[in-house]
Amino acid sequence: MSRRSLLTLIGATAGSAAMLRAMTTMGHAQESDYKPVKLEGDPKGASVVILGAGLAGMTAALELRDAGYKVTILEYQKRAGGRCITLRGGDEVHEMGGFVQKVGFSEGQFFNNGPWRIPHHHQGVIHYCQRLGVALQPFVQENLSAYLHSKDAFDGKPQRQSWIKADYQGHVTELLTKAVNAGALDDEVTGETKDMLLESLREYGALDKDMRYASNIGTSNLRGYDKPAGGGMTSAPVPSTPIGRDDLLRSGLWHHLREHDIYEHHAPLFQPIGGMDMIARGFANEVGDLITYDARVTRIAQSETGVTIDYDSSSGEGEGGQVTADYCVCTIPFSVLGQIEADLSSDLQNAVDTVWYYEGFKAGLEMKRRFWEQDEKIYGGITFTDLSIGQISYPSADMMSAGPGVLLGAYQFGKPAYEFTALTPEQRIERCLADGEKIHGPNYRQEFTAGASFGWHRNSWTLGCYGHWDEYGDTFFKACEVDRRLVCAGEHLSQWPGWQEGAILSALDAITRLHQRVIAG
Amino acid sequence: MSRRSLLTLIGATAGSAAMLRAMTTMGHAQESDYKPVKLEGDPKGASVVILGAGLAGMTAALELRDAGYKVTILEYQKRAGGRCITLRGGDEVHEMGGFVQKVGFSEGQFFNNGPWRIPHHHQGVIHYCQRLGVALQPFVQENLSAYLHSKDAFDGKPQRQSWIKADYQGHVTELLTKAVNAGALDDEVTGETKDMLLESLREYGALDKDMRYASNIGTSNLRGYDKPAGGGMTSAPVPSTPIGRDDLLRSGLWHHLREHDIYEHHAPLFQPIGGMDMIARGFANEVGDLITYDARVTRIAQSETGVTIDYDSSSGEGEGGQVTADYCVCTIPFSVLGQIEADLSSDLQNAVDTVWYYEGFKAGLEMKRRFWEQDEKIYGGITFTDLSIGQISYPSADMMSAGPGVLLGAYQFGKPAYEFTALTPEQRIERCLADGEKIHGPNYRQEFTAGASFGWHRNSWTLGCYGHWDEYGDTFFKACEVDRRLVCAGEHLSQWPGWQEGAILSALDAITRLHQRVIAG
Repeated sequence: MSRRSLLTLIGATAGSAAMLRAMTTMGHAQESDYKPVKLEGDPKGASVVILGAGLAGMTAALELRDAGYKVTILEYQKRAGGRCITLRGGDEVHEMGGFVQKVGFSEGQFFNNGPWRIPHHHQGVIHYCQRLGVALQPFVQENLSAYLHSKDAFDGKPQRQSWIKADYQGHVTELLTKAVNAGALDDEVTGETKDMLLESLREYGALDKDMRYASNIGTSNLRGYDKPAGGGMTSAPVPSTPIGRDDLLRSGLWHHLREHDIYEHHAPLFQPIGGMDMIARGFANEVGDLITYDARVTRIAQSETGVTIDYDSSSGEGEGGQVTADYCVCTIPFSVLGQIEADLSSDLQNAVDTVWYYEGFKAGLEMKRRFWEQDEKIYGGITFTDLSIGQISYPSADMMSAGPGVLLGAYQFGKPAYEFTALTPEQRIERCLADGEKIHGPNYRQEFTAGASFGWHRNSWTLGCYGHWDEYGDTFFKACEVDRRLVCAGEHLSQWPGWQEGAILSALDAITRLHQRVIAG
Repeated sequence: MSRRSLLTLIGATAGSAAMLRAMTTMGHAQESDYKPVKLEGDPKGASVVILGAGLAGMTAALELRDAGYKVTILEYQKRAGGRCITLRGGDEVHEMGGFVQKVGFSEGQFFNNGPWRIPHHHQGVIHYCQRLGVALQPFVQENLSAYLHSKDAFDGKPQRQSWIKADYQGHVTELLTKAVNAGALDDEVTGETKDMLLESLREYGALDKDMRYASNIGTSNLRGYDKPAGGGMTSAPVPSTPIGRDDLLRSGLWHHLREHDIYEHHAPLFQPIGGMDMIARGFANEVGDLITYDARVTRIAQSETGVTIDYDSSSGEGEGGQVTADYCVCTIPFSVLGQIEADLSSDLQNAVDTVWYYEGFKAGLEMKRRFWEQDEKIYGGITFTDLSIGQISYPSADMMSAGPGVLLGAYQFGKPAYEFTALTPEQRIERCLADGEKIHGPNYRQEFTAGASFGWHRNSWTLGCYGHWDEYGDTFFKACEVDRRLVCAGEHLSQWPGWQEGAILSALDAITRLHQRVIAG
């Protein structure tokens, strides 16, 4: 994900020095910031109205109801889940500007147009999946047989990820070995340390006895073979030839090498069996009875004694109404909240006006058969390209089935996302196919049956994909505070922007503090 | 796997220069050596006796029967599958030397004491799984939250794999950056290439603006945080502190960094749902009616017109007998074949006498609850240690279940395997627990319920784990040839030693050549 890439994070480091803390001990790393919430003490019949039935809102509802609160939820849509969503055959996608798509996927096929993967350390999400009976299965993030592709490198031919990974690491270790052997680092490494460094480089880079990264069985055993080993008379493997160092550097494909190493992509990852919205459905099974659907909030008022929420019917089909409660948990994205008449503290209003939302675009392409598996031996994982689609991801569900499969055919932020949504739905899919066939060849168009696209910034209930803070400083933390009888929550008030974990952890943090205030009287 | 490690492969390269071929083109790497076999032409009722109902034997049986041959199989055991085996509660393990273990696992729990994973490029195995209706699921090979451990490093405290991986790569790139900036490699890289190299190193190694690998958000986003990001008021992440370069080098833990990068471990990998022997059962559903079980071959005779096989009852309970056929496919491991009176060519006999078999030891430990998941957030994957157990692997099946799970509690070759099998079954399990609790703490012993161990070199039907050739030269290829009316097949006649793919590819190669001879008359 380009905006959240490593470079960005490193760049951001300079601006957030206050965040950094030198640790004197090592080995105490923590896997997750999630701790099960315990709301102890009697709220004495206090009522809470929750705005938004996404994961933040439903997490808050579940825990507050369990703690003894009277809970109601107002939800803009006619469904629960918010950005935890999955498109299936028969669904309709309504976009601001008037485009309507009717999803034409086959029975059983689906496309996670919002979040699509769950890191193993997202223990908040995993906790609620277990509690709500949502079964998870591995999501294949790294696939060394998937491609890296640049239209300007290697004559536009896609390269298997194992080639780029092994060759970059091999060339780098060979260069360092040369420098060390030439004595260029003698004031850094000497004696036994120098010997161990050289030994490790030889092993890590699969360098030959002359400490070179060359074409042989050792390097092929990292990058792959021209012909892998077999059985019997034809069993001899044929080594492959590494890409030359300068060609590799010029290709820029090394930009993708850390995609699978960043914390949120640390192996293993998971996905709900049957689609991401199984999580939304799991929550709705518990708190669905508390939800008023089709409710567009038009006014948020606070008084000494409570909150009053006015709403009308989002679809125009209903009546609208008013809800009063002692407290409010507002999970409405700031992009939308900024357009609602709301009695907020100046700090909170400032935050609402400050945060901007990423644009985001995804497209799903159903293919008649899984040619990426059958013809190219790619089972799950992601291909990265500098074509407009950005990525192609292969489904981790139903791998090796003889039936159809839905590819993630484009995933973009920023300018390319705008460019996609400037097109009609039909043109977007055409563009996905045109890009995809540059990587996968004619199958990509021939096997295509149905496509669906989703522009998050063209979506009336979020007006963007996820919230962005220039820094997690004072403005952010002020926005997390309880403002009289109201507290905000959602991924935008977490430091996991755009991740479901952020929505859940933010909600737990917000309601814990709200509850403390209620109990304190 | 130590014996098949990268170092060995690199070492072997020097001795197999003839195998190497410089490729003039790049980008034509092949993902698998498997091609579906087509035995065309009428064998006119020819009969074949197959010795051994492992995967090689059953693959041969399936294809030869489909091609019109009269096929019979003689199998030493009372079960089909050979080394494709899974232990479950109630199974008995009989070991040479007299040890008998009764497996005490709970209902539904199992332990793959032989092969346990299927690389995605093992297309022979995958083809037959699909054909035989054996469902596969991802096998989690790489888990960056699993541990690397050395009793002599870091006071014996296990280190998360992400720490060692990120820190090694970070320190190496920092060193190379210094050498490049000092001009030490100016005759290697200059101008634009030098700039791109430096840019790539900064990105790859998460180096800071001073080109140092330091404690900050950027490096923590690769290695993990002391406190990961959260939600709301407590959402700020706390960076972790990298391990110092010299400590890291001295620890030797970098030895394990390529475990997940070698070709046979390229992501993704798979496993049959329900245990590896689902493949054996799938084959047996097809060709089980051709198998005579409990048949210990005692003599293999050839004549101008056919083969005669004498056998007795392995268990002593049956009658034994004699089978004659036009041809024979012999999949008996050479370790066992060498002890049978057999009419073999001198080349083949020489090969039988030359190949030696690896010793191998595995132990499975059932635990009452999945503390590695619940307490340590490790879902699947492998911990590596220099303790006698070598590895601990966490089950990829039924992850996140509230019930028990079976760990791979030891996996060794060579001297440590012998040391384990010199102990009684009870002592072996005790040793696994003693080692395991050094990594996982008291849970390891407290949650333990039942263990089973398997020494492949103490197993009468293989007399070893898998075949080893010093080189794949003349002796190997001679052994693959059809010897009058007999041809040998199995993993030992492939260049995938110890892998099921090797057994299948060898069988397909052998029967294809045998069939050509039959058709040619």
